[in-house]
Amino acid sequence: MLEENMNLSTVTPTVSSAAPANDALTRWIALSRVKGLGCVSFKKLAAHFTDPTKAFFASVEELAAVPELDRGVVNGLANFSQWKAASEELQQVKRAGVKIVPFTDSSYPARLRMIADPPPLLYVKGELSPQDEKAIAVVGSRSASEYGRRVARELCRGLASLGFTIVSGMARGIDGVAHETALNAQGRTIAALGSGVDRAYPPEHDQLYRRIAETGAVISELPIGTKPLAHHFPARNRLISGLSLGVVVVEATEKSGSLITASFALEQGREVFAVPGEVGSSRSRGAHRLIRQGAKLVETANDIIEEVAPQLLPQRDERAKETRELPDSASEGARKIFALLQERPLQIDEVIEGSGFASPRVSEILLELELQGYLKQLPGKRYVAER
Amino acid sequence: MLEENMNLSTVTPTVSSAAPANDALTRWIALSRVKGLGCVSFKKLAAHFTDPTKAFFASVEELAAVPELDRGVVNGLANFSQWKAASEELQQVKRAGVKIVPFTDSSYPARLRMIADPPPLLYVKGELSPQDEKAIAVVGSRSASEYGRRVARELCRGLASLGFTIVSGMARGIDGVAHETALNAQGRTIAALGSGVDRAYPPEHDQLYRRIAETGAVISELPIGTKPLAHHFPARNRLISGLSLGVVVVEATEKSGSLITASFALEQGREVFAVPGEVGSSRSRGAHRLIRQGAKLVETANDIIEEVAPQLLPQRDERAKETRELPDSASEGARKIFALLQERPLQIDEVIEGSGFASPRVSEILLELELQGYLKQLPGKRYVAER
Repeated sequence: MLEENMNLSTVTPTVSSAAPANDALTRWIALSRVKGLGCVSFKKLAAHFTDPTKAFFASVEELAAVPELDRGVVNGLANFSQWKAASEELQQVKRAGVKIVPFTDSSYPARLRMIADPPPLLYVKGELSPQDEKAIAVVGSRSASEYGRRVARELCRGLASLGFTIVSGMARGIDGVAHETALNAQGRTIAALGSGVDRAYPPEHDQLYRRIAETGAVISELPIGTKPLAHHFPARNRLISGLSLGVVVVEATEKSGSLITASFALEQGREVFAVPGEVGSSRSRGAHRLIRQGAKLVETANDIIEEVAPQLLPQRDERAKETRELPDSASEGARKIFALLQERPLQIDEVIEGSGFASPRVSEILLELELQGYLKQLPGKRYVAER
Repeated sequence: MLEENMNLSTVTPTVSSAAPANDALTRWIALSRVKGLGCVSFKKLAAHFTDPTKAFFASVEELAAVPELDRGVVNGLANFSQWKAASEELQQVKRAGVKIVPFTDSSYPARLRMIADPPPLLYVKGELSPQDEKAIAVVGSRSASEYGRRVARELCRGLASLGFTIVSGMARGIDGVAHETALNAQGRTIAALGSGVDRAYPPEHDQLYRRIAETGAVISELPIGTKPLAHHFPARNRLISGLSLGVVVVEATEKSGSLITASFALEQGREVFAVPGEVGSSRSRGAHRLIRQGAKLVETANDIIEEVAPQLLPQRDERAKETRELPDSASEGARKIFALLQERPLQIDEVIEGSGFASPRVSEILLELELQGYLKQLPGKRYVAER
């Protein structure tokens, strides 16, 4: 209500005391700290600006033109002044051996980019890989039974051996088994944390944490040093499902956080799978509820693959259908370049020439369009619009 | 192919050497013995004749008027001559303390009457009851685990305590547990056999068989003395599902007969429920497959009741929707009486007067229309068309 009563005229129309940083990563950190700017608002900025951190340079009028952007965000951007803190954080992050992967970076997970509230940036310990696009989340009870652990192991072994990345939350119980099995099978695994990625939580998973960071990735949207507070975990769960084609719930009581992950999966249009167990086992009650609600009952990795395989293939076709038109939110620059490439495949130099844009801007737009599935690269660094 | 080449002119146009029996039950036994007359053809006769055994008195031309009736059936009816055998069988049945319940009898189970291939008659040891309309089948593996037996007991106890009749096949394992639990809970139970109802099969269930017959019913479509041959059981399974609102499969291997019962349930538009178990247990594999195919996962009796309760209530409404028109197969007599009762509620004498039909014919038609849900009785023996 307060926000609705705010008036644009109350916004300081000049840039704030400290000018925006030249360094892109510092600007990304700053963007993730802007008061009133949540992940949903961020996505609106990202849909409007090819580089959302350019919002710091935008006038109040330009920001007001971003569809459905809260006035509070405009205010927050205009008044942002903590450039020094952002810059210092970047130094700390680097010292901690942590990478920052902004939303527009090519290594930002493509599926996560599609959700309604993607983090503006990810803190990553380890490396994200393009092959993580083929990811399945395996989650479950912290107090798993020997049965649940056995099934989690069998499923993850099967998925890993077929090249699927196993995503989980590094918690005790099923999560830990999932990561460990993926690692033991020489597969990739990603842990999404509800704390900073600079330290292991829970502490007894310190060894596991190191192993994941070594060959996979530990990620979080929370700044390094953030403590694992209970209220971080529900939001963290949307990353687990957001990274994945589907979520497998192995054992879950009726109040399990795994059920939250499953709801996020449904909201995000991802598959939900659940492992049955014996009637009367409280640890299977949540999984059984999911199955009654429509989750697919899973016995083997094949049951999962059968369901997601069609999504892996026709995705290109689905993208192709969208090629004729860019979304309303696409920038004028993107439209111009896309139009050029719809005529015929072009080398990057030809695009620069044809568009009249500077080389970095062209690279940026090409990358963005490619990541969104509107372009593809042909051999010889030529680009063509997807049909 | 042979049948198609047959010509009506080859059919003996006169009644066969022995005239049809005056006794209705003998005629019903005879009808169930007519060469070429299966349960699907029988249903065609039942849709055409208020009393299907009248088919023995029908001329070839009248039989040829029954929609889609195979010529072989017409032949079989016209040539039927084993009246003595039928009459002798009736005596044997009576001596064995077995009842014959023909399709048109008011105690013939209403739900079973609706399936595509209902038996012309049931052999019944014990008693069928109107409350058996609220029936759930509980079936499963003959070599059930202790877990399966426990869940079957819990489900049947819950269902029986809420007045549901438990239907099963009296086999070893889950079937036996289902009947026994219903009996122990003072509930009703029906065993549908793949052999004659005059003896227990399997023999170790002799005691159980006696208990079921005492307070519930043991039924079969097979003549008394029929041995439990393997090929009888698939057809028997359609009776288990046909009697029931839904079928619960407790434990089932991938080749279990319970899966056949579940398919019949689907064909008949009945609910299918399955009890989950641990992944890796071969006894749960069939149940898990059913769940993946859409069967409802069941943990407690409530899960079943939730699903079937709406069917118990709106059934009257659904029937009401059909009141304006009788099916095409309805006899002229039924149409006439139904039209009278659509005007206003009438006493049976008024219907006799209004229709001009003899009293037994009116009673027969009223009963049939009532059983099919087109009429209801009001206090004071008045009849009214359902709206």
